[in-house]
Amino acid sequence: MEGATVLVVMQQGAAETEVQAVVAAVEARGLKAHAIPGSERTAIGVTGNRGAVEASAFESLPGVLEVIRVTHAYKLVSREAKAEDTVVDVGGVKVGGNRLVVVAGPCAVESLEQTLAVAEGVKAAGGHLLRGGAYKPRTSPYSFQGLGEEGLKILAQAREKTGLPVVTEAVDLESLDLVEEYADAIQIGARNMQNFSLLRRAGRARKPVLLKRGMSATLEEFLMSAEYILSEGNYQVILCERGVRTFSDFSRNTLDLAVVPAVKRLSHLPILVDPSHGTGRREKVRPLSRAAVAVGADGLLVEVHNDPDRALSDGPQSITPEMFASLIGELSQIAPVLGREL
Amino acid sequence: MEGATVLVVMQQGAAETEVQAVVAAVEARGLKAHAIPGSERTAIGVTGNRGAVEASAFESLPGVLEVIRVTHAYKLVSREAKAEDTVVDVGGVKVGGNRLVVVAGPCAVESLEQTLAVAEGVKAAGGHLLRGGAYKPRTSPYSFQGLGEEGLKILAQAREKTGLPVVTEAVDLESLDLVEEYADAIQIGARNMQNFSLLRRAGRARKPVLLKRGMSATLEEFLMSAEYILSEGNYQVILCERGVRTFSDFSRNTLDLAVVPAVKRLSHLPILVDPSHGTGRREKVRPLSRAAVAVGADGLLVEVHNDPDRALSDGPQSITPEMFASLIGELSQIAPVLGREL
Amino acid sequence: MEGATVLVVMQQGAAETEVQAVVAAVEARGLKAHAIPGSERTAIGVTGNRGAVEASAFESLPGVLEVIRVTHAYKLVSREAKAEDTVVDVGGVKVGGNRLVVVAGPCAVESLEQTLAVAEGVKAAGGHLLRGGAYKPRTSPYSFQGLGEEGLKILAQAREKTGLPVVTEAVDLESLDLVEEYADAIQIGARNMQNFSLLRRAGRARKPVLLKRGMSATLEEFLMSAEYILSEGNYQVILCERGVRTFSDFSRNTLDLAVVPAVKRLSHLPILVDPSHGTGRREKVRPLSRAAVAVGADGLLVEVHNDPDRALSDGPQSITPEMFASLIGELSQIAPVLGREL
Amino acid sequence: MEGATVLVVMQQGAAETEVQAVVAAVEARGLKAHAIPGSERTAIGVTGNRGAVEASAFESLPGVLEVIRVTHAYKLVSREAKAEDTVVDVGGVKVGGNRLVVVAGPCAVESLEQTLAVAEGVKAAGGHLLRGGAYKPRTSPYSFQGLGEEGLKILAQAREKTGLPVVTEAVDLESLDLVEEYADAIQIGARNMQNFSLLRRAGRARKPVLLKRGMSATLEEFLMSAEYILSEGNYQVILCERGVRTFSDFSRNTLDLAVVPAVKRLSHLPILVDPSHGTGRREKVRPLSRAAVAVGADGLLVEVHNDPDRALSDGPQSITPEMFASLIGELSQIAPVLGREL
Repeated sequence: MEGATVLVVMQQGAAETEVQAVVAAVEARGLKAHAIPGSERTAIGVTGNRGAVEASAFESLPGVLEVIRVTHAYKLVSREAKAEDTVVDVGGVKVGGNRLVVVAGPCAVESLEQTLAVAEGVKAAGGHLLRGGAYKPRTSPYSFQGLGEEGLKILAQAREKTGLPVVTEAVDLESLDLVEEYADAIQIGARNMQNFSLLRRAGRARKPVLLKRGMSATLEEFLMSAEYILSEGNYQVILCERGVRTFSDFSRNTLDLAVVPAVKRLSHLPILVDPSHGTGRREKVRPLSRAAVAVGADGLLVEVHNDPDRALSDGPQSITPEMFASLIGELSQIAPVLGREL
Repeated sequence: MEGATVLVVMQQGAAETEVQAVVAAVEARGLKAHAIPGSERTAIGVTGNRGAVEASAFESLPGVLEVIRVTHAYKLVSREAKAEDTVVDVGGVKVGGNRLVVVAGPCAVESLEQTLAVAEGVKAAGGHLLRGGAYKPRTSPYSFQGLGEEGLKILAQAREKTGLPVVTEAVDLESLDLVEEYADAIQIGARNMQNFSLLRRAGRARKPVLLKRGMSATLEEFLMSAEYILSEGNYQVILCERGVRTFSDFSRNTLDLAVVPAVKRLSHLPILVDPSHGTGRREKVRPLSRAAVAVGADGLLVEVHNDPDRALSDGPQSITPEMFASLIGELSQIAPVLGREL
Repeated sequence: MEGATVLVVMQQGAAETEVQAVVAAVEARGLKAHAIPGSERTAIGVTGNRGAVEASAFESLPGVLEVIRVTHAYKLVSREAKAEDTVVDVGGVKVGGNRLVVVAGPCAVESLEQTLAVAEGVKAAGGHLLRGGAYKPRTSPYSFQGLGEEGLKILAQAREKTGLPVVTEAVDLESLDLVEEYADAIQIGARNMQNFSLLRRAGRARKPVLLKRGMSATLEEFLMSAEYILSEGNYQVILCERGVRTFSDFSRNTLDLAVVPAVKRLSHLPILVDPSHGTGRREKVRPLSRAAVAVGADGLLVEVHNDPDRALSDGPQSITPEMFASLIGELSQIAPVLGREL
Repeated sequence: MEGATVLVVMQQGAAETEVQAVVAAVEARGLKAHAIPGSERTAIGVTGNRGAVEASAFESLPGVLEVIRVTHAYKLVSREAKAEDTVVDVGGVKVGGNRLVVVAGPCAVESLEQTLAVAEGVKAAGGHLLRGGAYKPRTSPYSFQGLGEEGLKILAQAREKTGLPVVTEAVDLESLDLVEEYADAIQIGARNMQNFSLLRRAGRARKPVLLKRGMSATLEEFLMSAEYILSEGNYQVILCERGVRTFSDFSRNTLDLAVVPAVKRLSHLPILVDPSHGTGRREKVRPLSRAAVAVGADGLLVEVHNDPDRALSDGPQSITPEMFASLIGELSQIAPVLGREL
C-alpha cells in the first residue's frame, strides 16, 4: 500500500512533447506525474496513494530511456531523481549554489526599531537574508508568541530599507497564508517537521520553503518530510539542521553536523545549519558556524540581536552585530577551502 | 515576559459570589481567570500573555485563603492547582477513576466489516472504548493516509452496534472539526504534541482530549502541551505515554513507564500507556501492558486487529481479539494489587 | 575474522562418549568446544578466534543430529544453544526458576551495625539475597570509594547472622579475587559491562556472575558481554537491567523494561531489574518494582537503607526496610498472575 | 563525603619555600597537595577522601593570595586551577600548542608490512603521531583481539623507521604496563572511560595519556575521568571526542563537536577529535575532519589503512594514505583562520 515508487527517466534530448506524453499516460492511470528537468535529462516521478505502478506501461513510450524502481521511500528529493544540486531562489538570493548564504536576524521580531537595527547590522556585515520570527512556537502558552501580522509588516519594511529578502516561520495554515504573502521564504520549524497538513500546504505555496529537522528526526524522516512538500509541486526546498535531542546536557541540543554530507549524498536539496538553536549558547555560535561551513553546509541561519540580554526570546543564544561581522570574516576564509565563496 | 503565574486559593466554603468577585477582579486587569473547583476548595488560575501579576491585588478579597506563586511553568495541570485526581468522562466511560480503562481497536479504520469485527471482539473481551484511525499521520506522503470522514462514519456505526464510545485522532484543524462531531474523544498524536494551534483548537473543543507524549518530549514539555489545552478552557484532558526515541534498537520506541508515577505526582490529569506504539512488537504488548497497569497507569491504549498480518498499517504491533481477551484476564488480576478494578 | 559460529546439536539420547568424540574433533582443529547439556538434547558450541569452521567436518560424526550456523553473533547465551531457562544457584538460592528472587541491601557497606540492621530488615521482610557495595565505582576520585576488604568481611558476617547469601561488586581483577573469596555472587557494574579483561576473569571464577547492562548498551552488546563470561567456561550468569541514558530528565535513567521479554526470547539466562538505579528516586522504586515483576523479570535488585537520608551514597534512591516489607507484599500478589511465586 | 574541594592560590612571585610550606600544611592534615605551577601564579589543589577542608587553615600562610572553593566537582583539570593551556609532550611532539597535531594509522596492527606501509604514508603526508591498536576491545569474544605485545613491537619498529612517536591503547593493567614500556602515549578507550582502576594506574604512568570520551558520557563525567588521572600525579592528559550514542542511525555515532569549545572553556587540557569512530563512514571522515579543526580542536585521530577493504577491523571507516594526504592539504588551509598552523 506504499503507493507508486517509480521514476521514468527520459533520454537525453527527449522532446518536450514526449515528456508531456508520458505525463499524460501517468495521469490517465489516476496517478500524479512530477516532471523534474535536469541539465542532462528529465525524470518524471510517479506518485499516487494507492496500488502499485506497472513499470511496463511506460517503458515503451517514445523518448523513455528507462523506468527505475526507487530504492528509498523518498523519490523526488533523491539524487536518483535529480543528479545535480538544486539551487533555490529566495528573493533573488541563490541558496545551494557556489556562494554560501547567511540568514541572520533576531529570534523574534519585537519592534520596528529593533528589527531595523539588527537588519542593518546584518546587511553591513555581509549577511544575505533576514530572519526573524513573527509567529513563535513556544513550549508555554503563557510565553510571548510573537507579533503576528504586525511582525510580518515590520519584516517587510526592513526588507525595503535594506534590500535583504525575508525568511520567517509559519506555524499553521492561517499564518502560512500571511507568510506567503509578506515573506520571500516560508520557514517550517522543528516542532512542525511532521505536521503533514502544514507540509502539504507549503507544497502548494508559491514561495520557497526552509524546512528544519525535528528534534529526534532520523535522516529518512527528514527527507520524507521534504518529500511531502515536493510531492505537492513545490520543488524549492531548503533543509536545515538545528541540533537533535540527546542525553548530552552542556548544550541545548547536539548539533549533528554529519547530517550535512549524508544529505548531500542522498539528496539534491541544499542544506543550511543553525548553530544558534543547535547549541543554545552565544559563545558556541562562532566555532560551530566555522565547523558548519567546513563540513560543507550551503550556509547558516544565525540569531543576531542588538541587545541579546534583553531579547524577548532566546537571548542567551543570540550574538551581537559586531560578533556577527567578525564571524563573517572567518567564514569567508574557510569557504575557499571547499571551492566556495561567501 | 512569561506572563502571570499565580493561583488564588479560596477558603473552604467560600461562597460562589466570592469566587465570581475574584474572577471579575482578575478580568478587570485584562487577565484570564480559570476557576478550578475541587472537592475541598476552589482555586483560580490566573493567566495572561503580558506582564507580571501582583498577588497583593487579590489577597484581600473576601473568601481568599492565599495567593501562591506557582513554581512550575505549568499551572492548571498541576497538583497545586487541583489536589484531587481529574476524572474525564468519555461518552459515559470514566477515565482516571478507580476503574481502569482499556481503549482498543485497529490502528487504521479500513472498512466497516473490519472495524465491526474488531469492535465486537474488543467489546466481548471487556474493552471500554474503541480506537481506530480515520486520519493517519504517515512519514511518507505515499502511504495510506486513512479513510477520512468515511472512517469517522464507520467508527460511529461501530459505536452504535457495540455501545463503545470512540476515540480517534485529529491531525489538523479541519479533521478536528469532524472528529469533534463524530467521536467521543479527540486524540492528538505524538507528532502533533507541539502543534500549538491544534492544541489551542482542542482547548476550545467540547469533547475530551487524549494527548500523546512526543517522541522526545521532556516531562515538562508534555505537561506544558496539556496546559495549552486547559488554558483555553477544556479541562477534560487524558495524557498518554507511547514510548520515546533512544539509541535502543530492539524495540520501535523505549516505553518510559517511570513517567506514570512522575505525572501522578505533579499533575491531577489521568494517564494511559500505549504498549503497541511503545514497543512496536506484538509479543511485547502483553508483558508491557501488565507492567503499565502495575506501575499505576489509569489504563491502556492497545492496537487490536482481526487479521494483523494484512493490516494496512502497524500490523506487526497489533494483537488479535483472542490475545486481547487473554490480556484483559491478566490485567484484571493485577488491578486489585493497586486497589483498582478493571 | 569473526571466528567459528556453529552449534553441533546432538541427537536425543546421544551417548556421552559420542559427545566426547565431537569435543575431541573440535579441539583437534584448534578450536574450543562448549558442551551445553539440556534436558532434551546436548548442544556443543564451537568457538575460536580465527578462521571459519567447516560444518561438514562434524555432521557425519555418530550421534550428531545437525550442525547449525548461529545467526546471531552470540552463541552460548542464545536460546538456540539451550532452549530451557538457566537457573543459577547463588549460595543455595535459585535465580531464574519459578520463584522470584529479591536482592536487597545498602548501596554501600558503611559499617557492621548499618549492614546488620539492613540485612535483618531485608531478611524479615522476605528478601532472598543481600547486596551491598564494598568497592564503589564513583564518578569523582574524591568520593567515598567503599570499605574494600573490610566491607567484604562485614558482608560475610551479615550472611552468618541472617543466612542471606551475598552479592557484591568487583571493579577490577584485584577486587574480583577477593569478592570471589568472600561473596556468593560477583556483580559486574554498568560501567564495566565492556571491561573485557574483567569479564574474562569473571568467566574463570567459580562463583556466579550478575552482569548489569551498560548505560548505553544495545541488547546485542549486553548479550555479547555475557557471552564473554560463558565463553571462558562460567555458565552461571544473571543479567540485570538498570536503566539506560536518554534525553529524559525527570529520572536518573530510563528503565527499559521491554528488554526483559526481549532477553527471554533470545537467551536462556535469567534477568533481574534494578529499579533503584533505574529511577534514582525513592518514590519511584515501588511502582517500577511492581512493573518489573509484571513484565516478567526473574527478580529485583533493590537498595534498602535504614537511614537513607544519611547514606554515604545513593541515599535519594534507597528505601527503608519498612517500605521494602510493604513492597514485598505487593509483589507477592502480582507474581501468581505470571504463574510464579515470591 | 565529597572530600576537599579547595584551591590555594599563591601570590604572583611567591617563593618556592612558601609553596612548600603550604604543601606541608596540607599534608599535615592528612590531605594530598597538588602544586600546579602556571606562568603567572602557582595554585595548590587540595584533595582527600574524607571530611571537609577548612579554608581558614591556609589563608593566613605566607605567600597565599586566596583560598577558593572550587565550584565544579573537578579541580585539577579546571581552568580555575590553571588558566593557561596545557601542552602535552608525546615523544617530542607538542599536543595543545599552536601547531595542530594529526595522529593517524591503522585501527589494528595486523603485520609489520601493513604497519610500515601505513606509517610511511602517514609520515609522507605530514602526520605527526602514529596510532594503531595492539590490544583491541571487541564487542564479541570471537573477534580478532589484536596482536598484543607482538603488535607493540611492530609499532616500535615503525617508529624507528619513520620517526613518528606512537600512541596505542591499553585495555587493562597488564597491557598498560607494556604500552607504557613500548609506546609514547597511552590511549584509554571509550569503553574504559570509567574503568577507574585503569585510570588510577594511568595516573601513575610516566607517559602521557590520551583519554577518549565514553559513548554516553556527560561533559562532567568526561572531565572527572581525566581528574582521576591528574589526581594520581600525571598531568599529561589529552582528551578526545569520538562521537556519542544517540537515536540517529545514519552514522555509527553522533560526533558532538560542541564539546570542543565547552572543554576549552572549563579545562586547560588539549582535546582532539576522532572523525573515524565518530562517523564510522569513510566518506564522512574528510568533511568532519575539516569541521573539527574549524571548531577549534587541537588535532585529529584518524584511521588510515593501505587496503581498507581488507582491514581486520573498522575497514569501512578507514581512509587510504592518498585520501589522508589530500585531507592534510585542506586542514592546513583552515588552521590559519584560527591562528594556528599544521
